[in-house]
Amino acid sequence: MEDKDQIQDAIKVQGEVVRKLKSEKANKEQIDEEVAKLLQLKAKIGGDDGKHQFVLKTAKGTRDFNPKQMAIREKVFNTIINCFKRHGAETIDTPVFELKETLMGKYGEDSKLIYDLKDQGGELLSLRYDLTVPFARYLAMNKITNIKRYHIAKVYRRDNPAMTRGRYREFYQCDFDIAGQYDAMIPDAECLKIVHEILSQLDLGDFLIKVNDRRILDGMFAVCGVPDDKFRTICSTVDKLDKMAWEDVKKEMVNEKGLSEEAADQIGDYVSMQGGKDLAERLLQDQKMSQNKLACAGLSDIKLLFSYLQLFQVTDKVVFDLSLARGLDYYTGIIYEAVLTQAGVAAVTTEAQSGASGEECVSVGSVAGGGRYDGLVGMFDPKGRKVPCVGVSIGIERIFSIMEQKAEASAERIRTTEIQVLVASAQKNLLEERLKLVTELWNAGVKAEVMHKKNPKLLSQLQHCEESGIPLVAILGEQELKDGVVKLRVVATREEMDISRADLISEIRRRTSEV
Amino acid sequence: MEDKDQIQDAIKVQGEVVRKLKSEKANKEQIDEEVAKLLQLKAKIGGDDGKHQFVLKTAKGTRDFNPKQMAIREKVFNTIINCFKRHGAETIDTPVFELKETLMGKYGEDSKLIYDLKDQGGELLSLRYDLTVPFARYLAMNKITNIKRYHIAKVYRRDNPAMTRGRYREFYQCDFDIAGQYDAMIPDAECLKIVHEILSQLDLGDFLIKVNDRRILDGMFAVCGVPDDKFRTICSTVDKLDKMAWEDVKKEMVNEKGLSEEAADQIGDYVSMQGGKDLAERLLQDQKMSQNKLACAGLSDIKLLFSYLQLFQVTDKVVFDLSLARGLDYYTGIIYEAVLTQAGVAAVTTEAQSGASGEECVSVGSVAGGGRYDGLVGMFDPKGRKVPCVGVSIGIERIFSIMEQKAEASAERIRTTEIQVLVASAQKNLLEERLKLVTELWNAGVKAEVMHKKNPKLLSQLQHCEESGIPLVAILGEQELKDGVVKLRVVATREEMDISRADLISEIRRRTSEV
Repeated sequence: MEDKDQIQDAIKVQGEVVRKLKSEKANKEQIDEEVAKLLQLKAKIGGDDGKHQFVLKTAKGTRDFNPKQMAIREKVFNTIINCFKRHGAETIDTPVFELKETLMGKYGEDSKLIYDLKDQGGELLSLRYDLTVPFARYLAMNKITNIKRYHIAKVYRRDNPAMTRGRYREFYQCDFDIAGQYDAMIPDAECLKIVHEILSQLDLGDFLIKVNDRRILDGMFAVCGVPDDKFRTICSTVDKLDKMAWEDVKKEMVNEKGLSEEAADQIGDYVSMQGGKDLAERLLQDQKMSQNKLACAGLSDIKLLFSYLQLFQVTDKVVFDLSLARGLDYYTGIIYEAVLTQAGVAAVTTEAQSGASGEECVSVGSVAGGGRYDGLVGMFDPKGRKVPCVGVSIGIERIFSIMEQKAEASAERIRTTEIQVLVASAQKNLLEERLKLVTELWNAGVKAEVMHKKNPKLLSQLQHCEESGIPLVAILGEQELKDGVVKLRVVATREEMDISRADLISEIRRRTSEV
Repeated sequence: MEDKDQIQDAIKVQGEVVRKLKSEKANKEQIDEEVAKLLQLKAKIGGDDGKHQFVLKTAKGTRDFNPKQMAIREKVFNTIINCFKRHGAETIDTPVFELKETLMGKYGEDSKLIYDLKDQGGELLSLRYDLTVPFARYLAMNKITNIKRYHIAKVYRRDNPAMTRGRYREFYQCDFDIAGQYDAMIPDAECLKIVHEILSQLDLGDFLIKVNDRRILDGMFAVCGVPDDKFRTICSTVDKLDKMAWEDVKKEMVNEKGLSEEAADQIGDYVSMQGGKDLAERLLQDQKMSQNKLACAGLSDIKLLFSYLQLFQVTDKVVFDLSLARGLDYYTGIIYEAVLTQAGVAAVTTEAQSGASGEECVSVGSVAGGGRYDGLVGMFDPKGRKVPCVGVSIGIERIFSIMEQKAEASAERIRTTEIQVLVASAQKNLLEERLKLVTELWNAGVKAEVMHKKNPKLLSQLQHCEESGIPLVAILGEQELKDGVVKLRVVATREEMDISRADLISEIRRRTSEV
């Protein structure tokens, strides 16, 4: 045991650290971390009664959702699920942890971010890192060769959390995938249509969907003289172009990854290209690219994709962008990523305490992404049988952050319950009558509440309605009981009227129906 | 490395073990375990190309949900959530893992079932064991003294899974709790009303809600001469009365827990009592019980509870049962548990492969339970401030099992998608027209599908409708395109009619509206 005085001294020092960080408006997480240390020190010398020696917090990088956040979350989920259902998707669920070996070798360098469970005897387990690998495992295990499914669930990454930018260690993924042998680019185009529908309906401001193809990237690397064994690592570097300037990306290629400067420059020319179907056509004529079979296959598919996107009426938001690479190892064809382009939404990152630099404030990051992964299911099948898949993942946490901010900025009140009527009384000793009436309402399917006090004041009952947005109050008194009526009060207008008990339920329904 | 021949021999032996178990119709889990061993051996000598050396399974005690199971799950959740919302509950969410110390000291002997995460640097974390402790942590952390909330999420227990009886290591909990300082028994009675509503609406057959109070149990232990320090452990033994005969429970008390035979017999007299308000009144006059303040407080509250339950019209299903103890440490007052009493539902356990004994087939187990825990939030508050809480947890996994079984037994087909219309064509080269039409439908909010083939056969398109229960087909052909119409086919009746493109959407809506 350390000496109590020593701990007291450490508390003083740590307190200074916290105060200094706060006065410097340091990064919130950094402050939180130092505060946690401080609390831990304080816990060592005991609380008021020495019993409560723990830190009251959620695990690093995670958060609770309060009722208001849940109401927003429910609204966003409904929009997304409705879209998935409109496109005929079924849904499945898989366990939150998988055998460790199921996840191994699927995520490249990011595997280090996987949460492992402690070996407590039995199997070695890890928390799922995404929903795609469990989906592929599910297909192979059940020998399913055909499915259109969505899956909304939490995934886990031991990443450095940046919670002010909506990046957490526990976060929702919202995936839609089409598995099966179909004609080229039709399911791929439907995925993009879905992204377009969801982002439009969520009303997040303007957005852009960047499209590329892994085969075009690989073909481009080949014709630029990248050695075969450097394709994946150079691809990872290209992927940083949304966060880093070309000059820095080039430096990484040349200095860290050992690429020749000439090859890097050639890549630089290509990855600056953006366009539509026309760009794909031009590149099919490109002296170098046209020599590479893989690139040509990818470019022809991009052309075909754009023709379907035209029929789906979404080409206004889609751009063919040769700099798009995406990090994951398992993509084999088309890849895409949606970004919000309106400056306004970047405000998510500008919390007072956030240490975000100016540049970070502008970059909003992607709100959806996906692509084709024709080889993943085969990695799980004992005979290596492939099931072609294409899918999209909606970046729901960023969307939550934006929606929450919007809600806070607007004056509109978010209701966290759906109660239609509060059963109240103005006089004492009417608890029994209130309970009888609320039972009638519940049994008729009316959303009703009663305060859990024997004799609540009328004022506090009315206040409760104001606070939680309950539109109606059914007031009982001696006189009303004698007359066989209920005084129905409209909270917004303070209008009151006597309604016979027999008509009460239909009157409440009439006044609270949303039609 | 082991020798390949040795492994081949081991595979033969293990194969025999599996065959033997199967022929003996052994317990399914036992078979699964041996099959897993067999697969592991086979993996050692490699698959076709030596690459696929892993076992394709979910972690022990967990399962995937396929689309049909998800459709059932969604229906059950909707019934339950509607009930919670009818009673004015908000919802919250908490992370799947908590700091290990948050969970420590809350679950008594069951703490050994907690899943820990591997120490990968940073905090020590554990998967949540229930939703109640995270709820209490949430209240203390946010200084909330008043809330009515529900929380539906998965929890984790390293228990021995009994999947045929709906017991898993990963399973849903469905909790409703009322926190706050209210008048006695009003929130408690509402919890029981909620259990009654949910079990009635799910239509699971007859049920019974047993009620008791921890104070009555403790008072009873005191007057029967149980030493203070044995209250909790004797309580755990009483809790086994739903699975063990009294004789065996008594043996455990006397032989394992060192209770005097006399004390055990006195307990035996009390725990055989069942009744209603009348029993509470009788026990208040009981020579021994009436001497114990704690017991009297509990008995008076049971009386009050029954008077409220009468107003809520639920006394038909509630019984005051002195043998009900419940395992968890944190209960301080009223406790309850709902069981299904119809023999029929016990069939959940009678799967052909299940090794369940006759007795197990009869015991259906509880489908809901809960109680009052006035001390838990205080355990988290730095100043020990208490927030009285009462809540109920719906045993959703057992309910899923029953519903799934019911669905399988009935002829009714469960749809896993909500598609209203398939856009089809009878002729070749109409992909573009199909995509155009389905876009029109999607944009109008119609749930529509198109097959992802350039030239699908009409027969296979119609078959798809049959299989997934799609009620309508919108068929395009050269003639229809010329005439500006679509041939709308009703799948069930094979009736076909030409509908103008302008009227198509309203016609589809009319024919698929549920009103």
